[in-house]
Amino acid sequence: MSKYVYTFGNGKAEGRADMKDLLGGKGANLAEMNHLGLPVPPGYTISTEVCTYYYANNRSYPTELTAQIADGIKYIEGLTGAKFGDAQNPLLVSVRSGARASMPGMMDTILNLGLNDKTVEGLIARSGDARFAYDSYRRFVAMYGDVVLDLKPQTKEEHDPFEDLLDAKKKKAGVKYDSDLNADQLKELVAEFKKIIKERKGVAFPEDPQEQLWGAVGAVFNSWMNERAIVYRRLNRIPESWGTAVNVQAMVFGNLGNDCATGVAFTRDPATGEKVFYGEFLVNAQGEDVVAGTRTPQQVAVKASKTWSENHGISEADRSKSFPSLEETMPDAYKQLLTISDTLEKHYKDMNDIEFTIQDKKLWMLQCRVGKRTGMAAVRIAVEMVDEGLLSSDDAVLRVDPNALNQLLRPVFDAEKLKSVSPIARGLNAGPGAAAGRVVFHASDAEAWAAKGEKVILARVETSPEDIRGMDAAQGILTQRGGMTSHAALVARQMGKVCVAGCEQIHIDYTKGHFTAGSKTVKEGDWISLNGTTGEIYEGAIPTKPSEVIQVLLDKTLDPKDAPTYQLYAKLMGWADKVRRMRVRTNADQPDQCKNALAFGAEGIGLTRTEHMFFEGDRIDAVREMILAADLEGRKKALAKLEPYQREDFVGIFKVMNGLPVTIRLLDPPLHEFLPHGDAAVNDLAKKMGVNSKDIEAKIELLHEMNPMLGHRGCRLGILYPEITEMQARAIFTAACEVKKQGTEVHPEVMVPLVMTPGELKAQADVIHRAAKGAFKTSGVTVEYLVGTMIELPRAALVADQIAQIADFFSFGTNDLTQTCMGLSRDDSGRFLPYYVQSQLLQADPFEALDQTGVGQLVEMGTSRGRQTKPKLKVGICGEHGGEPSSVIFFDGAGLDYVSCSPFRVPIARLAAAQATLQHKKG
Amino acid sequence: MSKYVYTFGNGKAEGRADMKDLLGGKGANLAEMNHLGLPVPPGYTISTEVCTYYYANNRSYPTELTAQIADGIKYIEGLTGAKFGDAQNPLLVSVRSGARASMPGMMDTILNLGLNDKTVEGLIARSGDARFAYDSYRRFVAMYGDVVLDLKPQTKEEHDPFEDLLDAKKKKAGVKYDSDLNADQLKELVAEFKKIIKERKGVAFPEDPQEQLWGAVGAVFNSWMNERAIVYRRLNRIPESWGTAVNVQAMVFGNLGNDCATGVAFTRDPATGEKVFYGEFLVNAQGEDVVAGTRTPQQVAVKASKTWSENHGISEADRSKSFPSLEETMPDAYKQLLTISDTLEKHYKDMNDIEFTIQDKKLWMLQCRVGKRTGMAAVRIAVEMVDEGLLSSDDAVLRVDPNALNQLLRPVFDAEKLKSVSPIARGLNAGPGAAAGRVVFHASDAEAWAAKGEKVILARVETSPEDIRGMDAAQGILTQRGGMTSHAALVARQMGKVCVAGCEQIHIDYTKGHFTAGSKTVKEGDWISLNGTTGEIYEGAIPTKPSEVIQVLLDKTLDPKDAPTYQLYAKLMGWADKVRRMRVRTNADQPDQCKNALAFGAEGIGLTRTEHMFFEGDRIDAVREMILAADLEGRKKALAKLEPYQREDFVGIFKVMNGLPVTIRLLDPPLHEFLPHGDAAVNDLAKKMGVNSKDIEAKIELLHEMNPMLGHRGCRLGILYPEITEMQARAIFTAACEVKKQGTEVHPEVMVPLVMTPGELKAQADVIHRAAKGAFKTSGVTVEYLVGTMIELPRAALVADQIAQIADFFSFGTNDLTQTCMGLSRDDSGRFLPYYVQSQLLQADPFEALDQTGVGQLVEMGTSRGRQTKPKLKVGICGEHGGEPSSVIFFDGAGLDYVSCSPFRVPIARLAAAQATLQHKKG
Repeated sequence: MSKYVYTFGNGKAEGRADMKDLLGGKGANLAEMNHLGLPVPPGYTISTEVCTYYYANNRSYPTELTAQIADGIKYIEGLTGAKFGDAQNPLLVSVRSGARASMPGMMDTILNLGLNDKTVEGLIARSGDARFAYDSYRRFVAMYGDVVLDLKPQTKEEHDPFEDLLDAKKKKAGVKYDSDLNADQLKELVAEFKKIIKERKGVAFPEDPQEQLWGAVGAVFNSWMNERAIVYRRLNRIPESWGTAVNVQAMVFGNLGNDCATGVAFTRDPATGEKVFYGEFLVNAQGEDVVAGTRTPQQVAVKASKTWSENHGISEADRSKSFPSLEETMPDAYKQLLTISDTLEKHYKDMNDIEFTIQDKKLWMLQCRVGKRTGMAAVRIAVEMVDEGLLSSDDAVLRVDPNALNQLLRPVFDAEKLKSVSPIARGLNAGPGAAAGRVVFHASDAEAWAAKGEKVILARVETSPEDIRGMDAAQGILTQRGGMTSHAALVARQMGKVCVAGCEQIHIDYTKGHFTAGSKTVKEGDWISLNGTTGEIYEGAIPTKPSEVIQVLLDKTLDPKDAPTYQLYAKLMGWADKVRRMRVRTNADQPDQCKNALAFGAEGIGLTRTEHMFFEGDRIDAVREMILAADLEGRKKALAKLEPYQREDFVGIFKVMNGLPVTIRLLDPPLHEFLPHGDAAVNDLAKKMGVNSKDIEAKIELLHEMNPMLGHRGCRLGILYPEITEMQARAIFTAACEVKKQGTEVHPEVMVPLVMTPGELKAQADVIHRAAKGAFKTSGVTVEYLVGTMIELPRAALVADQIAQIADFFSFGTNDLTQTCMGLSRDDSGRFLPYYVQSQLLQADPFEALDQTGVGQLVEMGTSRGRQTKPKLKVGICGEHGGEPSSVIFFDGAGLDYVSCSPFRVPIARLAAAQATLQHKKG
Repeated sequence: MSKYVYTFGNGKAEGRADMKDLLGGKGANLAEMNHLGLPVPPGYTISTEVCTYYYANNRSYPTELTAQIADGIKYIEGLTGAKFGDAQNPLLVSVRSGARASMPGMMDTILNLGLNDKTVEGLIARSGDARFAYDSYRRFVAMYGDVVLDLKPQTKEEHDPFEDLLDAKKKKAGVKYDSDLNADQLKELVAEFKKIIKERKGVAFPEDPQEQLWGAVGAVFNSWMNERAIVYRRLNRIPESWGTAVNVQAMVFGNLGNDCATGVAFTRDPATGEKVFYGEFLVNAQGEDVVAGTRTPQQVAVKASKTWSENHGISEADRSKSFPSLEETMPDAYKQLLTISDTLEKHYKDMNDIEFTIQDKKLWMLQCRVGKRTGMAAVRIAVEMVDEGLLSSDDAVLRVDPNALNQLLRPVFDAEKLKSVSPIARGLNAGPGAAAGRVVFHASDAEAWAAKGEKVILARVETSPEDIRGMDAAQGILTQRGGMTSHAALVARQMGKVCVAGCEQIHIDYTKGHFTAGSKTVKEGDWISLNGTTGEIYEGAIPTKPSEVIQVLLDKTLDPKDAPTYQLYAKLMGWADKVRRMRVRTNADQPDQCKNALAFGAEGIGLTRTEHMFFEGDRIDAVREMILAADLEGRKKALAKLEPYQREDFVGIFKVMNGLPVTIRLLDPPLHEFLPHGDAAVNDLAKKMGVNSKDIEAKIELLHEMNPMLGHRGCRLGILYPEITEMQARAIFTAACEVKKQGTEVHPEVMVPLVMTPGELKAQADVIHRAAKGAFKTSGVTVEYLVGTMIELPRAALVADQIAQIADFFSFGTNDLTQTCMGLSRDDSGRFLPYYVQSQLLQADPFEALDQTGVGQLVEMGTSRGRQTKPKLKVGICGEHGGEPSSVIFFDGAGLDYVSCSPFRVPIARLAAAQATLQHKKG
C-alpha cells in the first residue's frame, strides 16, 4: 500500500527536510522542525504524489487516501486532545499548499476548518470568547466560499460578496473597523454568508467537518492549476509535473487576546545581511492580518523598534505604548525565538525566514525556510557565515548568485528619495546602476553639453557606432528600441554605463526635440533619472552615488579599511579565484576600460574591437576616405593615415595590460557602417573630401546591404582588401615591439573574425605573419604572439577540425553564433522574442543566456573538433554570454579555457567560473 | 629500383589505358592504342611520379631516371632504325606533356627535337627535302628558345623575337607566306635564331640532342607550374599534386609533301551526336598549323566536305580542286581511319577525339581520348550506343551530364544569326534559354505591354515578389544585381523563364527609362535578346524557337513520332527512372507550373510557396489590410477575404496533381515585403483603404528590419498571429475535401517554415490539426495529410531528434540553411562570393552547388537525428539545390527520400538521382 500521508508533531515526524520533492518545502521543514525539537502544532502532510495522481486520474484520489487522512486526523486528535467536529473541544485545522519550490501567495489556504454551528459553541467554551469564535467562524465561511466553492462577484459593482456583506454590516452598526463588530453581529454575518452561498451556488455550506476537509484538500490541489500559479511556474521555470503537497495542521490562534500574537521574522537582516534577528509581529491577530497591511506591524527587537520609530518620527513614549517590541511585551517568547533562530541557522547553515504564532504566551512555529535576500545581504551572509564557522569558503562561493554582485558595483539612488516618486516609464534594465542627467537626443549634443560640465542622459531611438563618444560622455543611455544586447546595451555594459534600453513606452521625436511617456512630455534639457537595475525612468534628478566597491577599486576615494562591503566582496572573490579553473578576461577597447577591468580582476583581454577606435577624432575621415577610394592605391593612402592612430591605441592598451594576453579582433563591421547618414552629413563629408555628394551617395547606395549581418563583413573585408588586415597587423606588431622595447612584456593574440572556411584564416594569417616578421625586423625586437579566429558561424564550428590546423586559438563569438544558428537577428527579434520567452517556446532570451540546447552544441562541437586536431588548443568565448552565470557554467563544462566579458561583468564571471568548477567537481 | 619510364611501340606497351594516374591521359592512351594494334610512332612516357619527385626535391630528378631515359631512346632507335644525334639517319622526337586530366594548351610541347647542324643534313638526306628539313629546324630552335630557354620579348614593340625575325626575313625576301621561304633563307633564320638566343640568354643553343632532351623534359615539368596551368587547374579543380607525365615519341611528319597530312577527328559528330566520322585535316602540314588557323582545314569525309562547301558557297568544282576530302585524296588512309574509329569506339565504348598524321601515305595515330560534346550530342551518343550494344542502359544514364539536358529543353536562337552579332554585355546565366523582346523597366509595364501582344524583356535593378506578374508576362528577365539564386533567378527558373541576372555591366536608370552598357544606351521599347544559357545580352531581336522536347511535352505542337530528339530524351529518362531510388518533386505555386512539372516527370510537389499567391489580383489589398489591422478582429476580417482565394488556389493545384503529394508551405516572408514602396504607392494604398498615409508610413517604419532574413518571418508569423496559420490551414483542408468530393485523390503535406524549436512546430501543428478536423467535420470528407517542417536553420538540424517527435516529414530548405550555416546573405554575397570561388576559398557558389563540407553536415545530421526518433521519417529537400546534380548525388548519399526543384530542372534531377543510385550502388 502506498504511503500518502506523513504525520508530524510533538518532536516526531515521518518526514525530513530532504524530502521536499515528496512533502513540498513547507511540509518537509515542518517535519524537520519537529526533529529539531521546536514547537510545531501537530499535523500531517499529504504528499505531492497525490497531486500527480489527482491530475493523472481526472481529479480523483487514490483509494488508500481516505483511511490515511482519517488516521492523520486521529493522530492530531491524539496529540491535541481535541476532536474533529466535537461540540465540546473541537479540533480546528488549517489546510495549506506547499510545493517543492516556494510559490508565495499563488495557491490557496484555508484556516479555522472544522467550525460549524455546533463546534463554534465548543470554541466559545474553550476560548471563553464568543467574539473571537464567531470572527473565526465568519472568516472560515468566507474563505471556504471563496476558495472551495468559488463564489465570485456577479456584477461589476460587486467587489467581493463576503467583503460587501461585511461592509454593509459595519455600516449598519455604524462602526469603522472589523474588530468593532461584536459577537452577535459576526454571528449574523455567518448566517448571511451561508445564505449567499446557498443562493449563488445552489449548495449549502457543509456543516460536516469531514466534508469541509475534503473540499479544502481538493481546492488546494485545484489551485495548482489556477492561472496565476501556471503563470508563476512559467516565469520561475517550475515544472508542472512537480505538483503540490497539502499540509493539514492543528490551528493555533494569535488572535485569542493580548497574550497572543503572530509574526514573521528573518534570522538575519535580509536587506543588509547583518547578523541581527529581524522581524515584525502583531498582537492579537491572525497571519492574514500581517499580510493585509490594515494594521502597522511592530518590530520584534527593541533596537529595531527604536530605529523604526525614529525613522517614522514617533516619540519613544508613543512607541513603547503603541508599538512596543516583542522583546518588551513577551520577553520569554522573544528569547525562545532567538534560540530557535540560532538552532535553525546552525542546522540549515543559512539565513531563515520564519512564521510564528503565540497563543496564550506559548510560541508555535508555523513555517521556516531559507530566506530571500538582497545581493548585498547575500554576500555579507555568505562571508560572515564562513567566519562563524557555519560554512566552508567553497559553500560561500556556491551560495551567492553571481548577478547579486551587480548590487555591489552599481551607483545607487538615495533609497529614501525614491519612495516619493513614481517612474514615468519602464524599459529593459540593460545597464545596471543609477544615473541622473539632462536629456539630449544627439550624441554630438551629449559631448558638447558634457564638455560644458553638464550631466546628460543620451536618449535615442536606437544607437549606432557613431554615437560612441556621445554615449561615453553621458551619465546614462536611454533607447526606445532594441533588446538586452542591442548596440546601446552592449556598449553601455562595456563602459559600465547605466542604460535603459528598448523602452517602448516612450516615443522620441527628434524634430520636436522631446520624448513623450504617456501624457508626460520630456524636453531636451529636462532632468531625468534612470534606474538601470530595474529599467525604471523618473522625472527630475534623483541623487546618486558610486557604490563602496567602486569607490575603493576604481575611484580610489575610499580606503579598503573603511569599506566593510568592499572587504566582504574581496574575501568572497578571493575564495572564488582560489577554486576556479577558467580564466576571466575582458572585452575592452580603450586603456581606461582596461584599467577598470584589471581592477575588477580581469586576467587579460579577450576582445578588443578595433572598429570602435575608427570613430575617434579625425580618424573617421580617413576611414571614409579609405572606403570611398577608387583603387588599391587610394585605399593604401588612406590606411597609411589611420595606421599611426591604431598603433597608438595598441600601445596604450599593451602598456596598461602589462604582459597579460591581449586579443585584438581585426576589422569586423561592414564598411557602410562607417559612412555618414542623411543629406547634411553626406554634404559635409563631400565638402571635406572635395568630392561630389552624388558620388558619396552612389557609394552608400552601392554598399547598402539587405542583411548586413550576413553581408560583406568580418574577414571577408580582409580577404578582398588584404591591405586593411596588413595595416592593422602592422600597427599591432609595431606597437607591441615599441612597448616591449620600453621594458613591458606584451602578448598580442590577433583574432580573425567571421571565419567560414580554413582557407580564409590561412590567407589572413599569412598577411598577419608577414606583418609580424616585418615589424620584428624593423624594430629588432621579437614578441610572442598568436593568430586565431572567432568561431561565430555554424560552419566554422562544423569544420573546426580543419580550422584548428591554422588557428593558435579559438574564441566563440556567441552573439553572432546565436544569430546564425537560430536565424535570429539581434536587432529585429525584439518584436517576437519576448513572446517566445513568455510562452516558453524559448527558456530564456538566447542573447542573454546561451541557448545550451542548440547553440551550445556548436560550442561543444567546435571545441572538441578543434582539439581533435590540436589537443592543447586554447579556447575561449568573447560574446556577451561570457558574463552570464548560467552560460559561464556551461562553458566550463564544455572545457573552455577562459571567458571574456565587459569590465563590470568580470567579478560576476569570476564567481560563476568558481561555481562551475565546484559544481563540475561534484559531478 | 623504381620504374619511371614506360615504353610503347609496334603493338606493344608497358602501360595501359587505366594507368592514367601514372602516365597521364595521353601516355595511357598511346600505350592502349598499341595494345589495340593501331599504328603509333614508338616512344615512352616519363611517369607523373617524376613530376612529383621533381617538385618535392627542389626541381631535381631521381638518379635512376638518367639510365631509364637513355634506355627509352634506345628502344625508339631499335624500332625506328634511326639514331638520336646521327648524321645519317637521325632520330627526331617530340616531347609533350600529358596530365591525368586534359589541360589543352596549358603546358608546353617541343617538336623536332634532335635536330642540330649535323643531324639536319641527315634529315635532308632522308627526306630529300632541304626546305622541309630547315623549316623543321627553325621551328625547333624557336620552340626550344621560347619554351626551354624562356626567351621572351624585351620591349613593348617586340612581338615575339623569333616571329619578328621570321617576318623580317619574309619582308626581305619579298614574300607573304612562311612556305614561300626557301631552304637557304630558312637556314639563315636558324642561324639568326641561335644568335639571338646566345645574345639574350648568354648560353648557346645546345647542339647535343641529349642536352636538348633533358632541357625539354625539364621545361615540360616546369610548365606544370606556369601561371596559366595553375589558373586552369584552379578553374577545373585539378589538384596540383597530380603532376604531369612527359611523352617522348618518334616524330612523324605530315609536312613532308603532298602525300602527307595531319588532322583531328571525332568518331561521331560532337555537335549533334550523329554516328558519322567527323574530322578536319591539312595536307602537307604539321599539327600546329591546324591549330594556328592560317590555312582552312578540309573535311575528312566526302559528304561532310560537300555540306561544308555548300555552306560556304563554294562550287563543287572548286571544292574538289581546292578542298578535297581525305576520302577522295587518300582513300586508303581514310578507310584505315574509319576502321580505327570503329576499333576505338568498341574499345572505349565512347566517342573519341583523335589526332593523326599521315607521312608518305602511312597513317600514324598521335592521340586518342574521350571527346567533348554538346548536351544534345551527349544524349544522342549515349542512347544510340545502347541501341548499338556498346553500352548498358545504366552506362548511358551515368554517361550524360544531367545539366546537358538543359540544351534539350531551352528555346534556342538561330545559330547562324548569332554569328553576325556581338553581345553588348554579359551577366549570370541564371535562367537558360533564348528570349527576345522590347525592354520595359516596370513589372506593370511588362503586364500592360504583354496584354497588347508585345513581347517584352523586363529589366530591373533587382526584382521583388511584387514583380511576379510582370515577370510572368515577360519573355525574359534581366537584372543588374543579384546572384544565381536571387529572387529574379529563382522565380525565372521556376517559371522556366529566360533570365540574365546580376549583370553589373549595365546600369539601369529608371528615371530616364533606359539602361546603358558601356557606350550603348538601350531605351524603353528597344528590342534586345537574352541568351540565358550563356548570360549574353544582344541588341535587336534574334529569332528564337522552343526546343523539340518542349514542343512535344508542353506545347503539344509536335508528335513524338516526328521528334527524334524527344525520343532520345524519353528513352534516356526512362532508363533513369527505372534505376533511381529518390523521388523527384517540383517547386510550383500555380496549376500551370504544376502541369509543366508533371510533363517533365515530377512525382509530386515538394514546395508550394503560398506567399506568391498573395500578390495576385485584389488579394494584395486584403493582405495589406491584414497587416495594417490594429487588432485580432481586424486581421481576421482581412484574412476572411483572402481565404476563398487561397482555397481556390489549392483546389486548382490539387486537381492538377491528381492524388500526388502536394507540400504546401505556410506563409514565410516578413510582412513588410507585402507593403508598398515609395510615396505614390503608399498614397494610393491610403486612398484605397481610407486611412492616412502617415499611418501606413508609420507601419512600414515599424515593420522595417535590419536583417529581414533573420527577422520576423517563417513560423514566427504564425506563432504571433495563429489566425494566419488557421486561415491557410482551413483553406488547404476545405480545398482538399472539395476536390476529394469531386472524386480526385488528394494528399496535402502542410509544411511549417523556419522552425527553430520543437515547441514552435507543436504550436503550429495544433492549429493545423484543429483546422483539418473542422474541415472534415463540415464537409463530411476526410483526407490523409501530413504536417511537417522545413529544416532551414542550423538549430533545427541540431535538435532534429526533438523536432521529429512532432513532424511527419522534414524538408531541408537548403537556401536558408546555407545562408545561416555560412552567415551568407544570398542578396548581398554577390560582392565577394565570386572572388571566393575564383580564389578557391570556396569550391563553388554555395547557393548553386550545396556546400557539402559544411551545410552538408547539417543535412546529414538533421536526417540521421530525425530518424533516430522516427526511423521512417520522410525527408526531402526543396531548396534550389534539389535540381543541381552534384547536390542531388549528395542528398542520395544522405538518405533523403526525395528532392524537389523547379519544373524545368525536374528532368535534370531525375537523371542525377539515377546516377546517384548507380554510383552509390557501386559504393
